[in-house]
Amino acid sequence: MSKGLPKRSENYSEWYNELVKRADLAENSAVRGCMVIKPYGYSIWEKMQRALDDMFKETGHTNAYFPLFVPKSLFEAEEKNAEGFAKECAVVTHYRLKNDPENKGKLIVDPNARLEEELVVRPTSEAIIWSTYKNWIQSYRDLPLLINQWANVVRWEMRTRLFLRTAEFLWQEGHTAHATKEEAIAETEQMLDVYATFAEEFMAVPVIRGKKTANERFAGADDTYCIEAMMQDGKALQAGTSHFLGQNFAKAFDVKFSNKENQQAYVWGTSWGVSTRLMGALIMAHSDDEGLVLPPKLAPIQVVIVPIFKGAEQLEAISEKVLPIVKALKKLGISVKFDNSDKQSPGFKFAEYELKGVPVRLAIGARDLANGTVEIARRDTKEKKTYEIEGVVEVIQNLLEEIQENIYNRALSFRTENTLEVDSWDEFVKTLDEKPGFISAHWDGTPETEEKIKELTKATIRCIPLDAKEEEGKCIYTGNPSSRRVIFARAY
Amino acid sequence: MSKGLPKRSENYSEWYNELVKRADLAENSAVRGCMVIKPYGYSIWEKMQRALDDMFKETGHTNAYFPLFVPKSLFEAEEKNAEGFAKECAVVTHYRLKNDPENKGKLIVDPNARLEEELVVRPTSEAIIWSTYKNWIQSYRDLPLLINQWANVVRWEMRTRLFLRTAEFLWQEGHTAHATKEEAIAETEQMLDVYATFAEEFMAVPVIRGKKTANERFAGADDTYCIEAMMQDGKALQAGTSHFLGQNFAKAFDVKFSNKENQQAYVWGTSWGVSTRLMGALIMAHSDDEGLVLPPKLAPIQVVIVPIFKGAEQLEAISEKVLPIVKALKKLGISVKFDNSDKQSPGFKFAEYELKGVPVRLAIGARDLANGTVEIARRDTKEKKTYEIEGVVEVIQNLLEEIQENIYNRALSFRTENTLEVDSWDEFVKTLDEKPGFISAHWDGTPETEEKIKELTKATIRCIPLDAKEEEGKCIYTGNPSSRRVIFARAY
Repeated sequence: MSKGLPKRSENYSEWYNELVKRADLAENSAVRGCMVIKPYGYSIWEKMQRALDDMFKETGHTNAYFPLFVPKSLFEAEEKNAEGFAKECAVVTHYRLKNDPENKGKLIVDPNARLEEELVVRPTSEAIIWSTYKNWIQSYRDLPLLINQWANVVRWEMRTRLFLRTAEFLWQEGHTAHATKEEAIAETEQMLDVYATFAEEFMAVPVIRGKKTANERFAGADDTYCIEAMMQDGKALQAGTSHFLGQNFAKAFDVKFSNKENQQAYVWGTSWGVSTRLMGALIMAHSDDEGLVLPPKLAPIQVVIVPIFKGAEQLEAISEKVLPIVKALKKLGISVKFDNSDKQSPGFKFAEYELKGVPVRLAIGARDLANGTVEIARRDTKEKKTYEIEGVVEVIQNLLEEIQENIYNRALSFRTENTLEVDSWDEFVKTLDEKPGFISAHWDGTPETEEKIKELTKATIRCIPLDAKEEEGKCIYTGNPSSRRVIFARAY
Repeated sequence: MSKGLPKRSENYSEWYNELVKRADLAENSAVRGCMVIKPYGYSIWEKMQRALDDMFKETGHTNAYFPLFVPKSLFEAEEKNAEGFAKECAVVTHYRLKNDPENKGKLIVDPNARLEEELVVRPTSEAIIWSTYKNWIQSYRDLPLLINQWANVVRWEMRTRLFLRTAEFLWQEGHTAHATKEEAIAETEQMLDVYATFAEEFMAVPVIRGKKTANERFAGADDTYCIEAMMQDGKALQAGTSHFLGQNFAKAFDVKFSNKENQQAYVWGTSWGVSTRLMGALIMAHSDDEGLVLPPKLAPIQVVIVPIFKGAEQLEAISEKVLPIVKALKKLGISVKFDNSDKQSPGFKFAEYELKGVPVRLAIGARDLANGTVEIARRDTKEKKTYEIEGVVEVIQNLLEEIQENIYNRALSFRTENTLEVDSWDEFVKTLDEKPGFISAHWDGTPETEEKIKELTKATIRCIPLDAKEEEGKCIYTGNPSSRRVIFARAY
């Protein structure tokens, strides 16, 4: 804390990197592109996991666990999926190390322990899971099969950034099988809704629900749905995807069932996932030059109480007032920390909890003791007010709700202000540079135009919003006819 | 369920394998030695995780996440640890696949994408974690560092068995660093206590707390503490270990801190873990020829209600009685399933829930309706009794506690009956064959004798019990003097 964070307005990217490290969220490890998720960062991820897991279970899913490794022959079975991930696969080729005869104390790969078949470290688990589903599905009675897995996956990315793009990341991946196309599509849409609800209600991040263009689809999917969020620099971040897999994996792995008419048919599939990337979205959506701003629903510490005291006697007098508050808050399920350590000054603590994004801070000193008051500061607006101790628990409870709502609304206003309808190429290019954000514009529907625009501007089609209305227009680049607007942006 | 399980008395090993599969706990996968943990099995594991995680947090630990991969140069830094695990390491050597020019649609490892340094898939994480701790620890103020990780690990075992020994398994691994030797030992012992408490209070499995002999120590530890449980075939299963690492990893990774006297010193370490192996212990400790017997505290479904009905009208009348019971049980936090499906007969359902180990079963039919009663069957004793509907919720609540206690006591009696003090070699050999169990015997304290006994009988020293009393005796094999008894057994 001796030195402040870089300012967002000066170097957003540097601000992000520094914030992630200083707030003890994550750091780079000794393994290229792999991160260490530090305890404070992990405790936020645990809160995300818990909330998502509850939502998955409420919608009828159960968890299971499938192998980390995918034998190469299974990996290549669904051709598009294999092609999409082949270039970034970590591959296990050997199962033993041995002493290096030329260097005492060193090890080398044992050439006699080469695997007969190489194993791919899962970049995603469709292949291994569908090869298993083949044995689990015989009849329509076995459907739908609604399974989720919490796991680590590895994609050998060349340029990595903490949380946003790492070689190994943590995620959940749902994999479901259905008797009909309609049911599979309904599942795909339902899970997109679950993600959107989670993003908006827990992360306080407004998202646009949409579909990806063919270019941006998941490798092996017939359709990819996504939620897209806007970061404070106007760039888009894909926060979750839900894929309608058609019968692609069922055909690749020969997963058939006998339907009610006793005929054999291929099943229909979906898969959907969110990852530790959400941590990046959470950080970049709300935080400021002083540090993290966390939505109360995901904050590991929701309330911190900092006593301002000289000597043990004063601390004791303060504690007497504070402990009943702590107890009452805990009883309401509010996580509270009473930081009565005498190793740091109150000022140091204030800065530290600001950096860590604790939503509500109570301070109580000698004058408060005399007056029967406390000072409450909220992290989101930095507003401070003095309250009577009597009734302070209710004040806090309401404040937490207010903060949750406020940061959502703030992010929503920001997105609204930075989303523009644009109808000409010149304006499109100018807007991207001068007022980066989401651009709602017409596109002629061809992958070629999409590619060209990306090449010229680095902007991609984030999605075709699900609620886009029919509207006659002309493609901003080619001038060809278009029937609805899509969302363009530069993206993480 | 068409065919019963193999009988324990005829083929214990086959009984176990079949039970794991038929009760939908786990199955083998397409990857040699790796298992798929099926939803029902995973839901038991989730309950274990939740209980353990709560206990870790209550004792001051937080979770974090470290990379899956360990660069070879870090892996080999702590020599004994490296030596212990080198022979069973999965090694990533490449980071890309490419199209096989000779086989359309097939992939091969891209020889141009060889890693500069090979990556070991973690068999355990001391190396990667201590290389990180080096940067986290500077001063005594940074200590103790109390971190746990939930993760998958890979050990390339040649002979595998579902849950008991698999190439990939799930576990938690605690890694702590302390300023003094005493504190580190206290932590090691504390975590052994946590494991023992979990085994006894949640799994209902009595365990012996002890220390491993030097031969059986974790590679890189100065001391390994363990809990040992007895299975129904009299064999031992090591259910958890807690290691005092001394300064071995601190020295290997140069982790020093400045103490209160401002002197540089190496920190002291511990690590401790339990894994999905606990699932094997749970299954083998309690289950019978009809299927699983689960302790209520870990049962995904604690109570199942099976209506016995003909036609929708009768079902409705039954439901009217049942739904308030369901509601009342849920309110008490008891997980209950009302299986009102008409696809299977009550008899089929009874067998199914017996196989799945549901602790309490309620059945209610036409006669019960008339009498205002229900039939309650407990899984552990198979006892059935009829109760008035009035008050049934309390009956169930008490019954769940009683079952938890009963299966613990049953396992404890079994262990007591099958633990013998033996004082001669002949008796030792005879007991192992005729009445397999734990043998409490004297040993001369040498690794050579331990090895010899293992070679001759396949029995190993499971542990030196922490509560072993001083007692003069003679080693059962060499006749040399010994001052305390140790526990011998054949083991999983």
